[in-house]
Amino acid sequence: MQQERCSSSDRPLDPGCVLACDAERSADQPGCAPVDFPVAVVLPAGGSGERMGLPAPKQFCTILNRPLISYTIQAFERLPWIGTVVVVVAKENHDLMLNIVQKFNHTKVNVVHGGTTRHRSIFNGLQAFCNTSNSLTPKPKVVIIHDAVRPFVEEDLLLKITLAAKEQGASGAIRPLVSTVIATTSEGYLDHSLERAKYRASEMPQGFLYDVIFQAYQRCSELDFEFGSECLHLALQYCGVNAKLIEGPPTLWKVTYKRDLAAAEAIIKETLSMSACIIAGAEAEATELAKTLQKNLNMMETDVIPCAKESNAEYLSKMRNFIHLSMTGSNFLGVLEMVKHFEDTDHARLYPVVIVWVQLNMTKQSVDSQKTDELTAFRSLASEVIQGNVLLYGIQIEHTK
Amino acid sequence: MQQERCSSSDRPLDPGCVLACDAERSADQPGCAPVDFPVAVVLPAGGSGERMGLPAPKQFCTILNRPLISYTIQAFERLPWIGTVVVVVAKENHDLMLNIVQKFNHTKVNVVHGGTTRHRSIFNGLQAFCNTSNSLTPKPKVVIIHDAVRPFVEEDLLLKITLAAKEQGASGAIRPLVSTVIATTSEGYLDHSLERAKYRASEMPQGFLYDVIFQAYQRCSELDFEFGSECLHLALQYCGVNAKLIEGPPTLWKVTYKRDLAAAEAIIKETLSMSACIIAGAEAEATELAKTLQKNLNMMETDVIPCAKESNAEYLSKMRNFIHLSMTGSNFLGVLEMVKHFEDTDHARLYPVVIVWVQLNMTKQSVDSQKTDELTAFRSLASEVIQGNVLLYGIQIEHTK
Repeated sequence: MQQERCSSSDRPLDPGCVLACDAERSADQPGCAPVDFPVAVVLPAGGSGERMGLPAPKQFCTILNRPLISYTIQAFERLPWIGTVVVVVAKENHDLMLNIVQKFNHTKVNVVHGGTTRHRSIFNGLQAFCNTSNSLTPKPKVVIIHDAVRPFVEEDLLLKITLAAKEQGASGAIRPLVSTVIATTSEGYLDHSLERAKYRASEMPQGFLYDVIFQAYQRCSELDFEFGSECLHLALQYCGVNAKLIEGPPTLWKVTYKRDLAAAEAIIKETLSMSACIIAGAEAEATELAKTLQKNLNMMETDVIPCAKESNAEYLSKMRNFIHLSMTGSNFLGVLEMVKHFEDTDHARLYPVVIVWVQLNMTKQSVDSQKTDELTAFRSLASEVIQGNVLLYGIQIEHTK
Repeated sequence: MQQERCSSSDRPLDPGCVLACDAERSADQPGCAPVDFPVAVVLPAGGSGERMGLPAPKQFCTILNRPLISYTIQAFERLPWIGTVVVVVAKENHDLMLNIVQKFNHTKVNVVHGGTTRHRSIFNGLQAFCNTSNSLTPKPKVVIIHDAVRPFVEEDLLLKITLAAKEQGASGAIRPLVSTVIATTSEGYLDHSLERAKYRASEMPQGFLYDVIFQAYQRCSELDFEFGSECLHLALQYCGVNAKLIEGPPTLWKVTYKRDLAAAEAIIKETLSMSACIIAGAEAEATELAKTLQKNLNMMETDVIPCAKESNAEYLSKMRNFIHLSMTGSNFLGVLEMVKHFEDTDHARLYPVVIVWVQLNMTKQSVDSQKTDELTAFRSLASEVIQGNVLLYGIQIEHTK
């Protein structure tokens, strides 16, 4: 199933959907050793969004009530092997950024001020790690540099970038060229066209040994700071490091124009509606039903977990669709707890959470009055939680072996 | 107002929105002589849409119930100075394409079969003009080659491409590079990065003197047919023509991934809701009100026409929002005719048409019974036409000079 997720050409993992098994899977793959060294992220977000023709810089534009940059931060924050995320913003957006950090519960973010160009901003971000007395931002072994406006970055690629950077000193995501690249004469005529197969588009994320990229910035010229476009180029020119290039998925694209916001929203919506968590409980029948469901819900990515307890908090806090299986009368409290958890964590503030409570009625022995009480309680709960954006449905299945 | 349309960075002209004044405006602009020679279009549409991971090739994917390729065809068909549009499709999509032509009333299209590669398909398209006995496809002076999956191509750019092709032999749209382009070593490491300012992305449309591009295809090799990516390159290599390059808008982008469909839909929706046609009638007061309205509706692109008669059929068939001004009692029939016209031409099949009938009541002299009759008739008409996707509203303005 994991394989399917990764190969689906235009649908990334939900930026907010962590899978506990990701790390294990990656560890199994050849060349993907677990990350046992400190990794941090620098996210330059000083852009002004001029190209979009919007009042707000594009990284602060909202998709489904959440700023683009918050999705991007979450894509890193969800990964346990990534430490600090240094977000570099223009001075005038400092408070806005702090508000976003607070509102969306970002826990790994350190906000610093940007410079007048992208390279100056990145350098400012890197310098945040120099102050060793700052326990928030200890100096990492590898630093990942990414764009705030590329929200769909998957763990798989981040792992590859990180490990290649550790080994080679620098690494970067690439994509095939979409258009032919041509050289123009100064009068605006075609000079020649490049052979497409020999060239690639350099994208983000890029990874570096911290010492390599920091040194490159220390050595580079004012001209580089002003007009340079490529961190990989600086690492090559000033540290002699030829970056390892890694093919990334199309979802790495950069939200540049207003239309890209609609495209990003479509991806997020599809992802939200396309994954579900089945909470199976401990009973054998429920587990069996969970497996059958998982097999038949082949339009959706599904994961099965045994209970809605704290051990699965990660799932509960990231997923939007839940199918809660239980034996008759045995687990109304389970649903109640789950709903409480969502209330406490404010999980449904942004978009609705859907819970379908499936009661497997295996015997005819349950006391009718108990059933009726439960039904009444369930209905009253459902009509109460809908105010808080939680949609609660119930299904009863009468079933004899 | 025209200027605003063109400069709006991400919002093209409605592909279905013809402006009668376009040609005049263009003629006024320096370097834009009217097109007084035959121009045709070749639209290769043989692609399989693999990148999108969709069952249908992307050019046949629908946006708001209309296939992408129909928008693209319409972008050319609306221009009086463009003759035949040769659409090149895979043999298995021939019937599908004919159905689209019929359903969306395309009148300039000639469907021919594609080859196994893009270049073979384009050559097949060009050969459709060789059969001089075929009155549908007379040999043009200039041929425009475009992509079926770039629906937002504006008249302004098409004019520039056409005139430059006539003068220079070849011309093509370019865009600045979005990403840095890098050369890779055979082992997958960075070799060097190109200086971004010296290169451009070559986009579509491209224009050619028919004889130039036809000759280039006649001379080119099997290797070119199989792997060549660039018509401009063939014109240079086989005919020694250095194409004139013309900067295009960002909306030229190619619908490649599934997410691009959402982006295209967003653009179309915004465009549909952002333009209106004011039908002013002949009376001085109505004309005055129309002008005031036009001035105040600065969120919308508006055009004023004098009546809803056949002379304005072009407007009626392309626009979605109408404000019909009339003096009391004078023009209920005008609205009725208009609605009839929309029924006959099936204009509202795809998306709703909105008509706001504004009655200017200048005097108190109208007979009350007549007013009541009209009101009844209007209400009954409104509730009838809503079935056919026409939303009819009425406003009465009591007004004394």
